[in-house]
Amino acid sequence: MDTKLIVDEVRLTPILISDPPLLNTQGVHQPYTPRLVVEVVTGGGVSGLGETYGDGVYLDTARRLAEALPGCLITDVNALFGLAAQAADTVDTVGADDSGVDASGLRGVRTADKLRLSVVSAFETACLDALGRTLGLPVHALLGGKVRDEVEYSAYLFHKWAGTDDWGAALDPAGIVAQARRFDREYGFRSFKLKGGVFEPEREIAAIRALADAFPGRPLRLDPNGAWSVETSLAVARELGDVLEYLEDPASGTAAMAEIAARTDVPLATNMCVTTFEEIPEAFAAGAVRIVLCDHHYWGGLHRTRELAALCRTYGVGLSMHSNTHLGISLAAMTQVAATLPGLRHACDTHYPWQTEDVVTPRPVFRAGRLAVSDAPGLGVELDRGALAALHRRWLDDDGTFRNRDDTAAIRTTHPTWTPRHW
Amino acid sequence: MDTKLIVDEVRLTPILISDPPLLNTQGVHQPYTPRLVVEVVTGGGVSGLGETYGDGVYLDTARRLAEALPGCLITDVNALFGLAAQAADTVDTVGADDSGVDASGLRGVRTADKLRLSVVSAFETACLDALGRTLGLPVHALLGGKVRDEVEYSAYLFHKWAGTDDWGAALDPAGIVAQARRFDREYGFRSFKLKGGVFEPEREIAAIRALADAFPGRPLRLDPNGAWSVETSLAVARELGDVLEYLEDPASGTAAMAEIAARTDVPLATNMCVTTFEEIPEAFAAGAVRIVLCDHHYWGGLHRTRELAALCRTYGVGLSMHSNTHLGISLAAMTQVAATLPGLRHACDTHYPWQTEDVVTPRPVFRAGRLAVSDAPGLGVELDRGALAALHRRWLDDDGTFRNRDDTAAIRTTHPTWTPRHW
Ligand SMILES: [Mg+2]
Ligand SMILES: [Mg+2]
Repeated sequence: MDTKLIVDEVRLTPILISDPPLLNTQGVHQPYTPRLVVEVVTGGGVSGLGETYGDGVYLDTARRLAEALPGCLITDVNALFGLAAQAADTVDTVGADDSGVDASGLRGVRTADKLRLSVVSAFETACLDALGRTLGLPVHALLGGKVRDEVEYSAYLFHKWAGTDDWGAALDPAGIVAQARRFDREYGFRSFKLKGGVFEPEREIAAIRALADAFPGRPLRLDPNGAWSVETSLAVARELGDVLEYLEDPASGTAAMAEIAARTDVPLATNMCVTTFEEIPEAFAAGAVRIVLCDHHYWGGLHRTRELAALCRTYGVGLSMHSNTHLGISLAAMTQVAATLPGLRHACDTHYPWQTEDVVTPRPVFRAGRLAVSDAPGLGVELDRGALAALHRRWLDDDGTFRNRDDTAAIRTTHPTWTPRHW
Repeated sequence: MDTKLIVDEVRLTPILISDPPLLNTQGVHQPYTPRLVVEVVTGGGVSGLGETYGDGVYLDTARRLAEALPGCLITDVNALFGLAAQAADTVDTVGADDSGVDASGLRGVRTADKLRLSVVSAFETACLDALGRTLGLPVHALLGGKVRDEVEYSAYLFHKWAGTDDWGAALDPAGIVAQARRFDREYGFRSFKLKGGVFEPEREIAAIRALADAFPGRPLRLDPNGAWSVETSLAVARELGDVLEYLEDPASGTAAMAEIAARTDVPLATNMCVTTFEEIPEAFAAGAVRIVLCDHHYWGGLHRTRELAALCRTYGVGLSMHSNTHLGISLAAMTQVAATLPGLRHACDTHYPWQTEDVVTPRPVFRAGRLAVSDAPGLGVELDRGALAALHRRWLDDDGTFRNRDDTAAIRTTHPTWTPRHW
């Protein structure tokens, strides 16, 4: 066997990255959020990069998979699922259960399977990056090739507190419009998504109205992460039906989403009620969603994302892309896979502009809200080892406060009695 | 751009291959059947192979796509669909319509889309073969890697006439059992599939019973290509329910299949009512089939076959693999993609043992009914240019009798008043 294609070593580097105080239904982003950088090093000395959630339960699973991988071929990404399942048999999946909602990710119910897929995704990305670098091919070419040269992203607007960042507070419609103007000016984003479920629906409706007035005709999205009842969702849909590209997860659960969908013409999107292949048949049969937000972290990697896209295409369901707080490795992976999806007709979400720190260089540049699809080998990003070491040092020095993302704990440091709200 | 990855030339070679007089619902296999060999030659001088249907309508579409391909990257297989659609805009699709059944393929209704996908599949396979050869990687590695080292095939049993082949006639249960014994002895196949719909159901039931007696416990399949009514299908299911692995396309159409499925526990399989992604939602919702037979020719290539597998996995539908008369190029492609499909739990069909001629060397060897998955670059087969030239010469010399497969015309040369039968 060609040693150039064999995994020689896997390096896992948990890091803490600074994050602005963005508000959501679960609370507020902590000052630092954990991410995990996965490096797969081949016998040829080539290193491939992947990135995923960095919380302890992910890290535990990643460590077992990292032990199992040396000696495997970097081409064998289909086998990662079996390998991860075997490795997980011996993992203490504390924190992963089948009943709780994942507070860190706002991604619906947390299960051991989802954790494992999110870990596999980073390993798959790292293997594909290493393979692309070894062969001199971009990752998209390993997925059948790009069908577009640029990928469009949307601005991700948040109600937020003033922090150490230079964005200032945004706690009302005027603040959201000001934020949108800066995104428009600096990045050229055409689409705007507002993270909702933070204030009473009237204030969020007003924010969307203000955006529609400030940016006539632009695609607008509102995502309250399931914080509303069916009736509230329908009331918002009535108010905003003329300006919304889609309404994302207005209520929680497939049944509620299906009821809303049956009673409004506003397209419903989700990254909460369809987060695994297992959840698709029921949700599609119920007509609960018109658009699914893919996310290569959740779904188990770039190949699985393409399979999800095929499912959506087959069932006439639209496709968009979800984002959680992430760095440039994941942004590159998102862009590479998005470039290969023929049915992607909505701008992808990304938190990336909110991140001032990164472990790769150079920092990607959005033009007209778009990223050019790199044709460089692998993901087309270079690891900045100094930056990685500094962010890992922060993780090492942390007393445990930030190693597991907990937006609710974060908001309670200021508002001790805060609880999630529903309208 | 790296010229090694660029298509320099596409060679299309229509051929006629000898075929035994195998009987089916449409008539009998002609002495010669058309196939098309596609060679994609790169700027690096590497040649990749693909194989598909060779009838005139396929050839016309292939010629347009072959003109469009030079200058494209062999990595850009996702783009082949768009390229083929553009090329087809200018094709006279005589013979392709949305109403007729495809007599040559027993693959349900024939449409221009299906023709195009079958052509694209050969170009995709050829590009992947060329890419694998260029990179030194097997095709399965370009699809995420194999998850098994061997692919199991089933023996494909046919009622047949005596011909120039050395198998002799098989027109009753004893003849079918004798055929099965030879397949068992020479190839070690564990599973047996009988092509049905040729004689009255009683005779075919008796053949399956005889097989079950001769090979206790072996997986047995019966495929009358939709020749039966719902009631006949149910009667056969009752008779054979204890020995059938599955009953394949007993009746024609999703509605009839769904009705049968609702009234029997015998698993129903299909390569006729689910032949495109568009047909999946209705058939799956109706519970019409428990197993879908994939076929990379129909479905548009190896990547699309993997997408079909993901759909089946998601919907809890089993996966098997269909075969039409084919040579070693397609057999290699079938084996490569089958090796990557985690959910493939049924032996694949293949007509290959019926073919005495081939355009590749060496002839693959089945052991215990299985083919080893090649790890050689590309598909792992070598073109025999002498054999290709001879079979192309036969095509050139043909007066038109055999350039379009027509099993009904073939049977009418002996039985002028023959018409398809239904029970
Ligand atoms: Mg969301
Ligand atoms: Mg069949």
